[in-house]
Amino acid sequence: MEHVLAEAMRLVKPSEEELRLIGEASRELIGKLNNGLRRRGFEDMEVTLQGSVAHGTWLPGSRDIDIFVIIPKNRGVEFIKSGRALQLLAEIATENGIPWSTRYAQHPYLTLKYRGFQVDVVPCMKISPGEKPLTATDRSPLHTLYLMDKLRGKENEVRLLKAFMRVGGIYGAEIGVGGFSGYLTELLIVNYGSFLGVLESAKSWRPHQTVLDPGKHYASPSVARKIFNSPLIVIDPVDASRNAAAAVTEEAMSTFMAMAHLFTLSPSLEFFREGEPSPAFSPLLLLAMPYPANEPPDTVWGQLRRASSSLSNVLSNMGFTVYRSGEWTDEETIAAVFIALESLELPPLNLMRGPLVYAPESIEFLRKHVNASMGPFIVGTRWFAVEKRRIMDVAEAVRMELSRMPASLRSASIIKIRSEAELSSLPKNLEKAIRRFLSKPPWLSTLPPKYNASATGE
Amino acid sequence: MEHVLAEAMRLVKPSEEELRLIGEASRELIGKLNNGLRRRGFEDMEVTLQGSVAHGTWLPGSRDIDIFVIIPKNRGVEFIKSGRALQLLAEIATENGIPWSTRYAQHPYLTLKYRGFQVDVVPCMKISPGEKPLTATDRSPLHTLYLMDKLRGKENEVRLLKAFMRVGGIYGAEIGVGGFSGYLTELLIVNYGSFLGVLESAKSWRPHQTVLDPGKHYASPSVARKIFNSPLIVIDPVDASRNAAAAVTEEAMSTFMAMAHLFTLSPSLEFFREGEPSPAFSPLLLLAMPYPANEPPDTVWGQLRRASSSLSNVLSNMGFTVYRSGEWTDEETIAAVFIALESLELPPLNLMRGPLVYAPESIEFLRKHVNASMGPFIVGTRWFAVEKRRIMDVAEAVRMELSRMPASLRSASIIKIRSEAELSSLPKNLEKAIRRFLSKPPWLSTLPPKYNASATGE
Repeated sequence: MEHVLAEAMRLVKPSEEELRLIGEASRELIGKLNNGLRRRGFEDMEVTLQGSVAHGTWLPGSRDIDIFVIIPKNRGVEFIKSGRALQLLAEIATENGIPWSTRYAQHPYLTLKYRGFQVDVVPCMKISPGEKPLTATDRSPLHTLYLMDKLRGKENEVRLLKAFMRVGGIYGAEIGVGGFSGYLTELLIVNYGSFLGVLESAKSWRPHQTVLDPGKHYASPSVARKIFNSPLIVIDPVDASRNAAAAVTEEAMSTFMAMAHLFTLSPSLEFFREGEPSPAFSPLLLLAMPYPANEPPDTVWGQLRRASSSLSNVLSNMGFTVYRSGEWTDEETIAAVFIALESLELPPLNLMRGPLVYAPESIEFLRKHVNASMGPFIVGTRWFAVEKRRIMDVAEAVRMELSRMPASLRSASIIKIRSEAELSSLPKNLEKAIRRFLSKPPWLSTLPPKYNASATGE
Repeated sequence: MEHVLAEAMRLVKPSEEELRLIGEASRELIGKLNNGLRRRGFEDMEVTLQGSVAHGTWLPGSRDIDIFVIIPKNRGVEFIKSGRALQLLAEIATENGIPWSTRYAQHPYLTLKYRGFQVDVVPCMKISPGEKPLTATDRSPLHTLYLMDKLRGKENEVRLLKAFMRVGGIYGAEIGVGGFSGYLTELLIVNYGSFLGVLESAKSWRPHQTVLDPGKHYASPSVARKIFNSPLIVIDPVDASRNAAAAVTEEAMSTFMAMAHLFTLSPSLEFFREGEPSPAFSPLLLLAMPYPANEPPDTVWGQLRRASSSLSNVLSNMGFTVYRSGEWTDEETIAAVFIALESLELPPLNLMRGPLVYAPESIEFLRKHVNASMGPFIVGTRWFAVEKRRIMDVAEAVRMELSRMPASLRSASIIKIRSEAELSSLPKNLEKAIRRFLSKPPWLSTLPPKYNASATGE
């Protein structure tokens, strides 16, 4: 275990050179923004480094820097919401010859390209701990303040945890991942002291039961559970009304618990480096469509996830055996839903279970199925009938269902994939996403075989 | 309704000629047996007509006559059990030039061929009502006594009921039918007064709840239900310890209830004449084997029924969708089990549902499925894996299972039937049995369509 952790540490620590470059870029840019603001008479605004660079917990190779411009409350939240703040920051970027674009997630912000880094410049309102945020990002500076002392010396433990979660596909709070945000990983390290501490505790987590409350805002876990209805609850120490783990899905939480169990059982570097998806296959229905223009990624991921889950339900109800469904988008060109199934076609006949023979509805059932392919017949005390299916093909079933879905989905190509070879004809990034969806997690291969492996079936 | 019943009555009443012939044959034979016994000094034995001919309730065309030789108790039950009674009766048949054979069901008896009739000559011990029978057939003379007055004038109501049940395939207490014995139909008519009376009451029967107690032996139905665990309970008026409906299966009872409901809704002669099975089909697995030599029919029917039910269960557990299973034998040459299925082959892959991720068994599951075709993967909080099936073919699955079955079944041919055309290559009587198994009851076609028939699917 120590050996594996020492090796892993070398993988997750940025180089001296990277430290230097990211530090320089951040400092320079903060200087330029500060100058620009001061020259325009906005001395009351603070330009600050936030996020994983500020906390010293970014992963090697990351090109992301977060800079927050903290605006005093007396300027009013309209200063941000009207776009005035963004316009001001864009002016400063332009006069410094820095390319920029604007983004609107829950909150407008500016993205700069600077010395090869992508720098998010985010305006926010100054608030105090415990105070209600005025915009979605006002908490970030408080997070940095909260972590400052508590995280010191444990930065690389956070990096181990982030890398571990990234390999598990559960690092990131965006809806496409439904996993653990950077801040949440930091809170976990603060709470449990170390990477291994978090893993040991995760082994006894239980979805919808586990509550962490590092700020001790609630009298008991059961009080918190009544307020937050999420698989995992981690009360934000700087805001008692917020679950910092709200994005974590049951699957992400369960994946982390399983990984924690397996890693402590059988430590391996496989848990820290992203491997190639293993070759695996099942018959698949693929819906592929162009990424809908001008839609923010979270909206599209949400649509895809709802579509994938509702199509799974519809197909199950029609008699298809759905193994698993998933969704993916590169957030630029392609959006896709995949449904892995036992079979892409149903048998031509279908058993209808009717009412009990003495139920009044039995007459209606008999009328309806009097020309059945087989029966109506009685088994036990109940009527049954075997009827021809109207829809046997999964593509046809999905086509009918799509007409009820958002416009972007209605235009989807419906593709049946019968063999692994057919995957190769897809666009490379889509092919890779599907292979990842089908494959087993690479860290599973680390599981040592049991000495007395049994050969019996299931 | 009256018109239909009047027409039906013409179908079920024997002709004057038939009445005369069956009466003459019975009287002559009783005379010859009486003479033979008297000449040998057995004046204490009574030769009596029993069963449907005695009760006047046989169906037209029936060639069966029951004659019971009632032996006084002072001769001892050994007189029957030793075969002495049978030997005596066989001697008398021989000296009268009547061909005979012996049969042993629960009880040894003699079958004579006489003037085109098949006459069962059955020795039994004389007992009184309420007295415990010494052999299985001792009750029959008491049944005839009980019915003598009560049934008078209602014989043709019994005939309507028997013909109705015969069309439903539920007339007969033998194990291959699992239906209503002649005596039971007579008790029902006595109890409810008429054919329509029985039907009206059957519409409100409920399997495992309905109790009839014409002899008023029990204080309440619930007392009787505690003693007799059968779908239908009809206490034998001449023996409180016997359920005269013990042979009636859930399916036979339910079929009768459904027929009663439909006939009263829409009276038709279809309920009284046996029609051709309607063309119907589903994929089918057929086990066909020679009728096992020297096995009594009830034993063989029992084996077939157990085999059909246990194979259905095994196939369902393996993932096959079993529509219905049945069994059939002509009791001479062929015995068969049929299983109607959604499909004769399973898809190549199979979803395995694993434990919750935090369950200790998850490690074992992962070890076992680490080389799955797809996964292991987590859905919600649970592990799953998709594995190749070892057995995809229903014939192969059944072949494995047969090795655990009685010898007569182990030699069965396993035949997959994919289309209706393939039925025609089977022996005619087997083909007919399968078509009957697949078809809908002919009386169902009498159901009038609903005026506001809805076109919606299910």
